[in-house]
Amino acid sequence: MNMIEMIAKKRDGLALSGEEIRFFIEGYTDGKIPDYQAAALLMAIYLRGLTEEEIFLLTKSMMLSGDVIDLSQIRGIKVDKHSTGGVGDKTTLIIAPIAAACGIPIAKMSGRGLGFTGGTVDKMESVPGMQTSLSAEQFVKQVNEIGLSVIGQTAHVAPADKKLYALRDVTATVGNLGLITSSIMSKKLASGSDAILLDVKCGSGAFMETEAEAADLGEMMVKIGRKAGKKMVAVISDMNQPLGRMVGNSLEIQEAIETLKGNGPEDLTELSMILAGIMIYLGEKAESPEDGRRMAELAIKDGGALIKFGEFIAAQGGNAEVIKDFRIFPKAKHCIEIVCRKNGYITALYAQKIGLASQCAGAGRLTKEDTIDLTAGIELLKKRGDFVQKGETVAVIYGNNRKKLEEAAAIAEKAYTVSRQKTEEIPIVRKMIGL
Amino acid sequence: MNMIEMIAKKRDGLALSGEEIRFFIEGYTDGKIPDYQAAALLMAIYLRGLTEEEIFLLTKSMMLSGDVIDLSQIRGIKVDKHSTGGVGDKTTLIIAPIAAACGIPIAKMSGRGLGFTGGTVDKMESVPGMQTSLSAEQFVKQVNEIGLSVIGQTAHVAPADKKLYALRDVTATVGNLGLITSSIMSKKLASGSDAILLDVKCGSGAFMETEAEAADLGEMMVKIGRKAGKKMVAVISDMNQPLGRMVGNSLEIQEAIETLKGNGPEDLTELSMILAGIMIYLGEKAESPEDGRRMAELAIKDGGALIKFGEFIAAQGGNAEVIKDFRIFPKAKHCIEIVCRKNGYITALYAQKIGLASQCAGAGRLTKEDTIDLTAGIELLKKRGDFVQKGETVAVIYGNNRKKLEEAAAIAEKAYTVSRQKTEEIPIVRKMIGL
Repeated sequence: MNMIEMIAKKRDGLALSGEEIRFFIEGYTDGKIPDYQAAALLMAIYLRGLTEEEIFLLTKSMMLSGDVIDLSQIRGIKVDKHSTGGVGDKTTLIIAPIAAACGIPIAKMSGRGLGFTGGTVDKMESVPGMQTSLSAEQFVKQVNEIGLSVIGQTAHVAPADKKLYALRDVTATVGNLGLITSSIMSKKLASGSDAILLDVKCGSGAFMETEAEAADLGEMMVKIGRKAGKKMVAVISDMNQPLGRMVGNSLEIQEAIETLKGNGPEDLTELSMILAGIMIYLGEKAESPEDGRRMAELAIKDGGALIKFGEFIAAQGGNAEVIKDFRIFPKAKHCIEIVCRKNGYITALYAQKIGLASQCAGAGRLTKEDTIDLTAGIELLKKRGDFVQKGETVAVIYGNNRKKLEEAAAIAEKAYTVSRQKTEEIPIVRKMIGL
Repeated sequence: MNMIEMIAKKRDGLALSGEEIRFFIEGYTDGKIPDYQAAALLMAIYLRGLTEEEIFLLTKSMMLSGDVIDLSQIRGIKVDKHSTGGVGDKTTLIIAPIAAACGIPIAKMSGRGLGFTGGTVDKMESVPGMQTSLSAEQFVKQVNEIGLSVIGQTAHVAPADKKLYALRDVTATVGNLGLITSSIMSKKLASGSDAILLDVKCGSGAFMETEAEAADLGEMMVKIGRKAGKKMVAVISDMNQPLGRMVGNSLEIQEAIETLKGNGPEDLTELSMILAGIMIYLGEKAESPEDGRRMAELAIKDGGALIKFGEFIAAQGGNAEVIKDFRIFPKAKHCIEIVCRKNGYITALYAQKIGLASQCAGAGRLTKEDTIDLTAGIELLKKRGDFVQKGETVAVIYGNNRKKLEEAAAIAEKAYTVSRQKTEEIPIVRKMIGL
């Protein structure tokens, strides 16, 4: 097998064979194929594309570059969920306990994530005492006992993706359908669940800006997952403005608890009910997603989901009292209010700018080595569609570094657009794929 | 300036600015831009192309990455010549003394070249004693005294091209018009001549297989050279079969001498007369290329070109007696005859296979560190259009390594195609550009 010939083949628009793709992924992962040849191939792939079969083969090779988790010791249909990422997205922490309360075993590995805010694992760590790294045995045991565990991703899942993603990031080859699909799906397939629900975000704060791009990605991921024998559904949801009212690790877990109590903001509650409903349906505890949604709503109403969340916190060493008493969460030393400068309707609340502001306040990482200020974040008192008056507070920024908060406030202020005319409402779920 | 944004710009089909191209070439030459980013950009360039303006700017930046030779101390219009490379191409050693004998100052730097046979400089070194590395002062002095000097290329000419070419070679990004043009022209523009004659080869033994591709390259190089203020002409010549009858360093210099005596093979003589005529015209010693050709023919007839060749050898320390006595050249220890297996006309003599056979016999290098067997090579007794009889010798392979010669013979044999039907003759010069 010759790497130069392989690059030339893709450069000329031909499809690569499974053997060639395996040769590339294995060689690149173990360092035999240099970065510059991988970079040339990535650019050829970016510009020439990959067939569905190539994407499947690439995903499989990347999955096999590391550990493939064995969840066979867990009874029932294991359902995983993945979000392509957005600002204020704490749905995993809401729907995982709901689904578990409805009898779906949830054995989830989650990333820490660079960028605007921490990942699910970072959010969990704002609960005092909560552990996010368990041994494989503990992980399986906990799911069998209480139906739910969420832990940090180990380094051994799809190392090829880790290496390739870093290279794509510095060679302008990130935004390609086949490469994005294989990156996400290689990790999901390695995670061992039987069914996967994808939440593909679209809008100004998401990787895919348009609904059409997000739908293409969702459709391709559903196809690839099914080829690999998984039950698959994708939901395209809005990320033009942040999800819910809280952005930042400790703030988001508090909002998740409020939502589990039935007091969540409308958009977050609606999306969570839809996603939880589909998970319960995929796990074959409901006849339809709608039936699943009714079960999810009941789990909120009867307190079952909240109780499950408490069990989950306690099982992983956290102080489950946080559910009843938010004073247990560490508090930020400082806060700054953002005040509206004119009367009118909020017509846009740019998720990306709120994300940047939240990162600036200390809630996110720029590099893997950065530490997160778990108390930092933004509370959005006003969102798209709300009427605001001059002088009214629209958002509050929290954190421990006063100087950073001022910078963050300057960014967050620009996230709001206020106009005389109210704009049309955007539904939170735009499309469903695979149902 | 941001390299990732630059890659994305070219990836999306946009033109790069002069500032961006300079940033890339300077950064890559001094190691600040890593190979993997250069590789991604090269692939984007390969697939998206470069505008004429971008090619010009790239050529200029690459030229300025190293020394630009100053030939202002040499009187007259300095004319350079460049061949894109082929098998048996020894024209430089014929036309340089002809043009010099006609009053054109020739101050030429020539490469050693990897591949099938050595470069002009290697061929020169098969003359006992001949030096190919002179100081800048000696070089200029010799051209002012005898009108002719050919030396090896110094490492300081267009180092950006050296580094980029090595990367293109291992990333399947060699065959792009803009990249080839800038690679050749950056070195030619750095070499300091006032006029440049390009011999662009086309056919099975050349980089450009079709006449159309070769003409595109020739036209682009003429445009870029003229933009840089040089007088430019390009000739498209045939390289389906080797040029002349001799392939290999010492063998080729002997054939060059025979051609200077008026005894050269028809194709080589014809091409040399056309090229020399154009050089004399470009150097403004003739009214037209045809007029230049008549002067070139006269320089052969009256012995002036041969005398000039002797002066040139002597000036660079070589034994000029070789002109009269070929026994001075070192001889190969072994030779193998290739015998024809059937009666018929030779309808093809694949230059590429003869090149490979010659390299295998020891005449060429695979890596820069390889040493060349100057005596090794192939004598082609029969060429395209010749009638051959079963059992007749069509070629002889020379060299010092018997085992290698046998391998070479097996390759060379496959270069010949013999058929009952004679094929049409292919003219040696296919097209002229810029006249």
